[in-house]
Formats: sequence, C-alpha cells, structure tokens
Amino acid sequence: MTFDFSELLRPGLPAANAAPFSGYPEFYFIGGNNDADSIPGKKLGEIAKSVLEREGGSLASYGIGHGPQGYRPLREFISTKLEKRAQLKSNVDEILVTSGSLQALDLINNLFLSPGDTVIAEEASYGGAVSRLKALGANVVAVDLDNDGMKMDHLRSILVELKQKGIQPKFIYTIPTVQNPSGSVLTLERRLELLSLSTEFGVPIFEDDCYADLLWDGERPPAIRALDETGSVIYCGSFSKSIAPGFRVGYIVADWRVIAQVLPTKTDGGTGALEQMVLAEYAATDFDRHVTDLSAVLKDKCQTMANALEEEFGTSAEFEMPKGGIFIWITLPEAVDTSALAQVAMAEGVAINPGAEWVVNPETGRHRMRLCFASPSKDKIRAGVKRLAEICHRETGVPIRGANITRS
Amino acid sequence: MTFDFSELLRPGLPAANAAPFSGYPEFYFIGGNNDADSIPGKKLGEIAKSVLEREGGSLASYGIGHGPQGYRPLREFISTKLEKRAQLKSNVDEILVTSGSLQALDLINNLFLSPGDTVIAEEASYGGAVSRLKALGANVVAVDLDNDGMKMDHLRSILVELKQKGIQPKFIYTIPTVQNPSGSVLTLERRLELLSLSTEFGVPIFEDDCYADLLWDGERPPAIRALDETGSVIYCGSFSKSIAPGFRVGYIVADWRVIAQVLPTKTDGGTGALEQMVLAEYAATDFDRHVTDLSAVLKDKCQTMANALEEEFGTSAEFEMPKGGIFIWITLPEAVDTSALAQVAMAEGVAINPGAEWVVNPETGRHRMRLCFASPSKDKIRAGVKRLAEICHRETGVPIRGANITRS
Repeated sequence: MTFDFSELLRPGLPAANAAPFSGYPEFYFIGGNNDADSIPGKKLGEIAKSVLEREGGSLASYGIGHGPQGYRPLREFISTKLEKRAQLKSNVDEILVTSGSLQALDLINNLFLSPGDTVIAEEASYGGAVSRLKALGANVVAVDLDNDGMKMDHLRSILVELKQKGIQPKFIYTIPTVQNPSGSVLTLERRLELLSLSTEFGVPIFEDDCYADLLWDGERPPAIRALDETGSVIYCGSFSKSIAPGFRVGYIVADWRVIAQVLPTKTDGGTGALEQMVLAEYAATDFDRHVTDLSAVLKDKCQTMANALEEEFGTSAEFEMPKGGIFIWITLPEAVDTSALAQVAMAEGVAINPGAEWVVNPETGRHRMRLCFASPSKDKIRAGVKRLAEICHRETGVPIRGANITRS
Repeated sequence: MTFDFSELLRPGLPAANAAPFSGYPEFYFIGGNNDADSIPGKKLGEIAKSVLEREGGSLASYGIGHGPQGYRPLREFISTKLEKRAQLKSNVDEILVTSGSLQALDLINNLFLSPGDTVIAEEASYGGAVSRLKALGANVVAVDLDNDGMKMDHLRSILVELKQKGIQPKFIYTIPTVQNPSGSVLTLERRLELLSLSTEFGVPIFEDDCYADLLWDGERPPAIRALDETGSVIYCGSFSKSIAPGFRVGYIVADWRVIAQVLPTKTDGGTGALEQMVLAEYAATDFDRHVTDLSAVLKDKCQTMANALEEEFGTSAEFEMPKGGIFIWITLPEAVDTSALAQVAMAEGVAINPGAEWVVNPETGRHRMRLCFASPSKDKIRAGVKRLAEICHRETGVPIRGANITRS
C-alpha cells in the first residue's frame, strides 16, 4: 500500500515536475547558462588546491570563522571591484555574501513583503524576480521601459497615483545596467531622477546589478547606490554571470542597519565556503581580465544570434542590440503567441523563454521572447534560430520570408 | 538625511543583529562546528584540482548539466552509502541534493505547512528545526524521550487525542539516530512501532539522520525509511557533520512523487556545484575511513568533556553518555536557569546552548543545556567546563562541590 500524501500537502504548491531531468534540449536558448569554454577550470583547480591545503581546516566551522556575512577576503574583493567598476564605495560590514543573487532576492523580499503589499518593477523584468514577487502575494506595478531603461515620467505618475490611493509601495525593483531582458542601460540622468523620486515618495530602491560586469557597449554608469546619499538603495550582484553559475555566490550591499536586519533571517548555515574561498583568490588577480575576455566572446555570440535572427526572421523579429549580457529580447508580429510557440519548439528541441514569463503583465509579453546566446556554440545558435524560424512559420505563418527566400 | 526604513519592514521580523561578527568566544560549546584537525584539506585540494581541470567547464551551467537534483556522482555515492550504512535502498531519482540539511528542513516544511498546522516532534529536539516550525506558525506537539528515543506509548496517546479533536498532524519530525540533543538511538522495535502508528493515523514521518554517520556506540539500526513499505518516510541527511559544515551539502531521500513536488519549490538555482563535485570524489574513496577516524576523535573529546563535567560539576550535572555525535545534553539542578547562565557565561567567554532553545516547550529545558565538544581542543574543553562551573557556582550556588573541593 502506498502512503497517500494528497490531503496533507500545503495548498498553493506549484505543479509537481513530470519526470526527472533527462538532459538539455538540442538548442538551449533559456536560462543563465554561460560559455563553457570560458570557464578557467585549470586555474580555478590550482587555486582550490592551494586554498584547501592552506585553509581547509576552517571548513570545520559554519561560516569558516568569518561570521555570517561571508568569507572576508571575498567581501574585500567585492568592495574593491564595486568601487573600481561601479563607483560604489562600501566596507566589508556592508556586504553580505549570499547563495547566488536568487537568495538575495528572497532575503530582501522577506525583509519587506507581506501578501498584498505593492512593489514597483520594470514592465519587462527578470522572470525569477517577477514570479517570486507574485508567489509572495505582492501586487506588482509595472513601469514602462525604453532603450534608456525605466521611464521616469511613468514612474512618477505611478507613485503619485499610489499615494493618492493611500498605497505605500515597499520598494522599486530595478535592473538598471544590462537590463533583463531588454539589455538596456539606465542613463545617469534617470538614475539621479530615480533617487530623487525615492526620497520624495519614501520608497527604497532594490538595485539588481547581476549583469553589469558584462557590459561591452559604452561606459558603465555609477551604480544607483553609488549616487545615493540616504542609504535608500539595497544593491545586489552575483558571480553567476561573470564567472560561473555553478558557483552559487552572490552578494547584497546595503547600509549595516539593513544588513543587521537581514542577518537573522539568513538561516542557511552560511553560503558555500569552498566556492567563496576559490572565487576570492581567483577574482583578486584574474577578474578584470576574465570579464574582458568573456565579454568579447559574448559580444561575438550576440552578433551571431542577431545575424541569424535577421537572416531567418527578417523584419518579423524586432530587437535592440543589447549593450551586454547574455540575451536578446525580441518582438514578433501579433500573429505569434510565444507561449504556444515555446511549447511546440520545446518538443522539437528548441528551448526559448516566452515573453509572458518575462514581464509583469503577461499580455505585454505575448508576442515577445527572450533568447540566450551565451551557452550554445555559434553553430548551434545559427542552426537553432533557423529551426525556430521554421517551426514559427509552420505554426503561425511568420516569418513569411527567411534565408532570402519566400517560405512555401 | 538617512532614509527611514522603519515603517516599511515586514511585521514579525526577528531582532536585528547588534553588531558585525567579531570572532568566536574563547570557549565555544555551541553550534555544529567540527574538529578542524580532522578536515582532510590536502586530499580535498588535490581532488578539487583534478575535478576542476576535468569538469570545470560544466560550472557554466546551472545544475552543471545534471539537473535540479544535484551532481549525479554525488547522488550515486549517497545511494551507495545509505544502503551500506543504513540499509536504505534508493535510486538517484529519489535523491535531492540540498544546500545543507537546513534547506531540506525548509523544503519539507514548505511542502506541508500553513500557519496553524500541527507537527509532532521529540520534546528535546534540534533548535533550528523547532525555531523554524514555530516561525511558520506551526503548533508543535512534543513527545517524551528516554534513552531509547521517542516513547511510542506517548506518541500513540498524542495521535489518539489529536484525532479525537479532529486535528490532522502534518508529519512527525524525528532524529532517531544520535538524537539531537540527547544523543540517544531509537531502537529497532520502536522504529517499527513508529511506522505502524504512521500508517494507522495517516501521518508521514520526517526522519532527520544528520548525525547518524557519527555513531560510535553500538550497531546502527536500519533507517526508518529503510523499514518503510508505504513511502511515508521522507529522509534527510548531511555531510556537515561527517565531512565539514563549510560544505553546504545535505540531501533528501524520498519517493520520486515527493521529490517531484519538492523540485519546483527549490528555486535557488541549484546547490553549490564545486562542493558537490569535490565531495563526491572524496567520499567515493575516503568516506568510511574518514568517518571512522573522526568518530574516534569525537568519542575521545566526548569522554574528555564527560570527565570535566564530573570533575567540575560533580553530581550537579546529570547526563547520559551520547552514543555518537558532537554534543552532551545535561540536566542541572532546579536552581539553575540555563538561559540566564548562558548570558552571563557568554560575557565571560563561554558559549553554551541553553536548554530552553533546544526543546519544544521552553519550560522543560529550563535547567538543561547542550554542550558541543567537537570543535574545541581537549584543553579548551577542560578549561571551559571549569570556567563554566565557576560562573555557575557564583551565579546560582551550584555546583556546591567541584574539582574535589567544596567551593567557597
């Protein structure tokens, strides 16, 4: 007899997985996977050996003797890196190492949100952030985006309207630099305007800067937190994009008073210590060079995908060239429902992010899709986009033309 | 001007930390820290080097290409180990690698619990488990313990009473082997009785087996899940005690139908990959020998602490010798409130777990304390217990005699 759990499970759980993982589809254009050839395995291995011989005994302690905020040399590197790259000054007490930036999202959401609370976010935004907010019962209000990031006139009108209704938003969640999914960069002028709105309406800013180290087009502006004189900005970043997602290491940077309130809610026994130790030592000498090299690889793959899209989809695929990162955000004609397309394509070995899962209001993403180019080879990018165009044409009649011939 | 967060924070947050971490107290008898000299740093370093050279590229993918359940060779090792050591058969699809067993607790709690739900647990139990259940708003019902573990007659009477009241408990949380904090081992007879009660009352069992690999006194009985024919038992374990807490690696073993329902709720981007890779390769060859050696070290430290307690506290400190693990659970006379003692002792460099934080009903732990012996040296154990006895005598008049002289 099999034990029956059905009456015992918590109401509201997501649907169970259908089957165990059985490998990636042939063309994998989703998720934050990165370029495998760029992982410095040999160097990381040498560092791991030396770190473990030297400090392995510290693994016997939770927090490896550096306390709940993480391995101190890693916090020191993060502080140095942020000052150099994002003009953001911080001390090690203002830095909390997290198990990926996903844990940073969970910790900050938990700091502020009860069901029914209101959060403001970019209309198109990181799917994992939007789904978390909605799962917590938050009311997410969307701000329009253009190629310079969040539109400040729209944000102001939202803040005014919420205030008139007596609603206090808990925070403004933004990905200002290499925005996910649009790839845009919030201008300096808008950053200052955002801070001024934050002060005026008493709404803190949650700045998610996970992709910023992979900017290749233009100067990186100062982090919003770097421009903040009131401590209203809580900043998070990650090594998942700049080094490797297999290392689950991200970080929060905020005033100590905020970190002090987050710490007792981080009940995970600490973030993986070996990964922190290896990253700290690698990054101290190799981070800048690695990120420069990686960005060049990604820019090349991005161009390959852009070319393939133009070749296979022609004018049916509209997109801005991203200024960095690992994805392109594409608008297709009205006839294409990308959620339906994603299902059919998946069955034929092409994984895409349907736009509805990458926006606040699903309808605004209905004809859009996000394609990631970092992980597949350039050959796979070309072949996968070609197959996707074929499937899309067969299912929706779009694109009419591709590869310089009219499709039959 | 400083931004004011006070009106924005979620109600019910724990108190903020007072200050950044500034190092451990001189005598640290709390937490799950282990013996630093037993960490095989050199061997782990060699393995890390070879693994990263060989498979480093896989770090470019979330889940290192092995899917959301964890690195497959590690799951294979866990399966082999559990069959050999706990008579528990499993396949890799029934194993989910987690970021420490703390994440396993969070995932299983989240699977079942809404505020107001009822959970059954041992009266004295892991503080981190009890505090999690209470933070979720669960009603925790305590079962009496003796030196053979949870008392089944008491459990039956609780189940009958809850049924009469129309209350369906969500699960029975138990640490059957090297119970935390009592160090006891649930007998085979009681394991079978527990399973029979689980079936009779339709209540699943959550078996936390984190310390079982460190059993040194007596034969390890089969895991409860190994005796279960209905799939009612969800099992969790950890490498934190057997190898190192700095590696944040634990695991859940359950029927695939349970794992399938847990997977979509594990939204962390995967558990640290480097740690899984290194552990898998180390454990495959060295686990048994390492755990045998470590258990001998711990048994010796345990005896040192027991001797120090007898010498310094005399008959004032009552305890059973634990059958394994890293802690002793001590009952002091009525005059001693260990929560008050812990505060004074901490100020004088001795950290202890007051009993009230390690039981379901705080009152039952009022005169008790948990002391961990794995991390401090034997000299520190002797000196720390001596200082604790002096403080305790000064504050409470107990112990009256110590070190073979009457205290003045």
